Amino acid sequence: MNAFRFYAPTLFEFGEGAEKKTGDLVKQFGGSRVLLVYGGGSIKKNGAYQGVTDSLKQAGIEWLELSGIQPNPRSGKVYEGIEICRKENRDFILAVGGGSAIDTAKAIGMGVLYDGDFWDLFAGKAPIEKTLPVGTVLTISAAGSEGSDSIVITQENGGLKWGIPRTDVVRPKFSILNPAFTCTLPAFQTACGACDMMIHIIERYFTNTPDVDLTDRLSEALLKTIHDSALRAIKNPDDISARANLMWAGMLAHNNSVGIGRVQDWACHQIEHELSAFYDVAHGAGLAVVVPAWMEYVMNHDIMRFARFAVNVFGCEMDFAYPERTARKGIHRLRGFFRHLGLPSNFAELDKNIKLSDIPAIIEHRKQKPNAFPFGNFVKIDEKGMEEILRLCV
Amino acid sequence: MNAFRFYAPTLFEFGEGAEKKTGDLVKQFGGSRVLLVYGGGSIKKNGAYQGVTDSLKQAGIEWLELSGIQPNPRSGKVYEGIEICRKENRDFILAVGGGSAIDTAKAIGMGVLYDGDFWDLFAGKAPIEKTLPVGTVLTISAAGSEGSDSIVITQENGGLKWGIPRTDVVRPKFSILNPAFTCTLPAFQTACGACDMMIHIIERYFTNTPDVDLTDRLSEALLKTIHDSALRAIKNPDDISARANLMWAGMLAHNNSVGIGRVQDWACHQIEHELSAFYDVAHGAGLAVVVPAWMEYVMNHDIMRFARFAVNVFGCEMDFAYPERTARKGIHRLRGFFRHLGLPSNFAELDKNIKLSDIPAIIEHRKQKPNAFPFGNFVKIDEKGMEEILRLCV
Repeated sequence: MNAFRFYAPTLFEFGEGAEKKTGDLVKQFGGSRVLLVYGGGSIKKNGAYQGVTDSLKQAGIEWLELSGIQPNPRSGKVYEGIEICRKENRDFILAVGGGSAIDTAKAIGMGVLYDGDFWDLFAGKAPIEKTLPVGTVLTISAAGSEGSDSIVITQENGGLKWGIPRTDVVRPKFSILNPAFTCTLPAFQTACGACDMMIHIIERYFTNTPDVDLTDRLSEALLKTIHDSALRAIKNPDDISARANLMWAGMLAHNNSVGIGRVQDWACHQIEHELSAFYDVAHGAGLAVVVPAWMEYVMNHDIMRFARFAVNVFGCEMDFAYPERTARKGIHRLRGFFRHLGLPSNFAELDKNIKLSDIPAIIEHRKQKPNAFPFGNFVKIDEKGMEEILRLCV
Repeated sequence: MNAFRFYAPTLFEFGEGAEKKTGDLVKQFGGSRVLLVYGGGSIKKNGAYQGVTDSLKQAGIEWLELSGIQPNPRSGKVYEGIEICRKENRDFILAVGGGSAIDTAKAIGMGVLYDGDFWDLFAGKAPIEKTLPVGTVLTISAAGSEGSDSIVITQENGGLKWGIPRTDVVRPKFSILNPAFTCTLPAFQTACGACDMMIHIIERYFTNTPDVDLTDRLSEALLKTIHDSALRAIKNPDDISARANLMWAGMLAHNNSVGIGRVQDWACHQIEHELSAFYDVAHGAGLAVVVPAWMEYVMNHDIMRFARFAVNVFGCEMDFAYPERTARKGIHRLRGFFRHLGLPSNFAELDKNIKLSDIPAIIEHRKQKPNAFPFGNFVKIDEKGMEEILRLCV
């Protein structure tokens, strides 16, 4: 196990009606003039908007709204939010929604207190040192941004989808998790969310760091739970127990509980970010295609780790004579599971517009980022490797 | 899954040489005049004292010392610490050691800011609302106090061993975890520590709350890791990977990660606290005797949960025709594991002074506490139940 710092001071309020505590929690963390950040109408249909604003009113907290945040959230809304905060003297950002609303809120929070263009903080041109306090009311179990140390935003011009250098500074002060809000999600979004969380774990699980038994086992526990709970939630959207297990698992999958003490990979996210920026596909759906392809590409680097994944997550029987058969079975089972959830298995199913002939352009696009190649840590992915992985997605 | 709040804002600095950051972390959390709390000479032998005081010096932080904290820490040292803090205007308490030093530091921290007798806060006569900031440098993997919301102290007069009503207020601001410090522990203490952490999980695992798949699986992941790592650490005390996995597991076992969303039991701790107060036995050793006895006593309440424990933690084969055989096998394996670690299996091995004829007096002693009976939640334990469990320990 490597040395690490773990500092995840977010307060979680979990359960039915938890949104009623929003006003009190905003106050507890010093907020009185809120910017409320959300997407479209879904939070008005599932009751989250009503519950949150009732609670703010009751606590005597005033707010302004920034709505219309899209999936794969764009920098434009961040600039807009920063301007409102400065002009209207906001002291707290409250996101209601999923990862897109939350990441936008987090980016606004740190952007407000930074003197230059907030994009500098993404590009590593300036260190992330402070932020306005951010709270969240989660309505989609997926991104884990409600407890995470990261933010992903897509630049409006040029379509660069980019994550900040991870830092505890941007962890929310509190997050309210009411699993009932997720019961009204379309099945496809539930599936994308489950996939997103599984990949957050997989990106950490495939590592070259030895002797991380504990985080390996915690990872497998989370993966199994997400697997079982997602099947239940897809079958019966109102299965509140499945929704609850998924919601807490999604947070743990990305608050770095299962990443501590080891070198993490993140190659698949790098590849998927290019797809999302290029074709605006759903992040979870893009990952469902990229990850099994990446697995096939890197499998030989550590057959036994892949065999372990197959046995401990999918209950495959270990083939002691031919471990690579077990390893392959695990990848096969993961792909089958994604398909069962209604997720795509290849580019054609993901988005008809993706063509084999686009691959060079996608790789060129990646090159616009500093230190574009190689990326990943389990296996270093160079241009040729990225091309091969993308070809395996076809 | 039940509603819950989870708020564990302790900063963890983990790894070799982490103690070098003590001074900076004390500063970060507002400390400048420290009370350093520790036990005997072990921290001077393992290098922790040197490393910590060097770091404090380097950061320009002055300190006073309160040493001589004993296992099963007593209220006398708490009163002493409170007096020093008030007289000498301390603004930060730093514990170096295991659960005893840390619990003493935590009790001093909240006692300093309370106007009456600090014992009121244990007895529930006054709410726990604030504390001086507390930091810890851990040298024994066991109690989990480095990340927990609890404190256990034994009253000097009357020998009542008592825990506070659990509250996030008393969680440390930071904890420094250098697994190398635990390599010099005697084997018996390593074993007691492993047992203590396993029981922190078991007290949460045996519950009547349905649909807590995630925390069930996380519990099993922790239990398996502690099992394997303890065997490694006993065999080779310098196995730093085993020590590292144990150290992080001990924190997770008791920061309530595996207790959220479920009703917890804690009957065994209640029983063991009476033994510790009566005979001053090592907490972990007392638990090694009490827990398997408690398991036998309550097993029939939920055979399938005990069978799951046997299969998922100890790898027993499930007997589908006679699940109670599997359940029994799990208890047998747990007891065998404790024995293998060198821990006692019954009262005679625990302490020769414990006699069958003492049982009524032990139960009488328990009665001095308010709401003494029944206790526990998985199965409610009344006086008769406690007597039967104690008899099973003989």
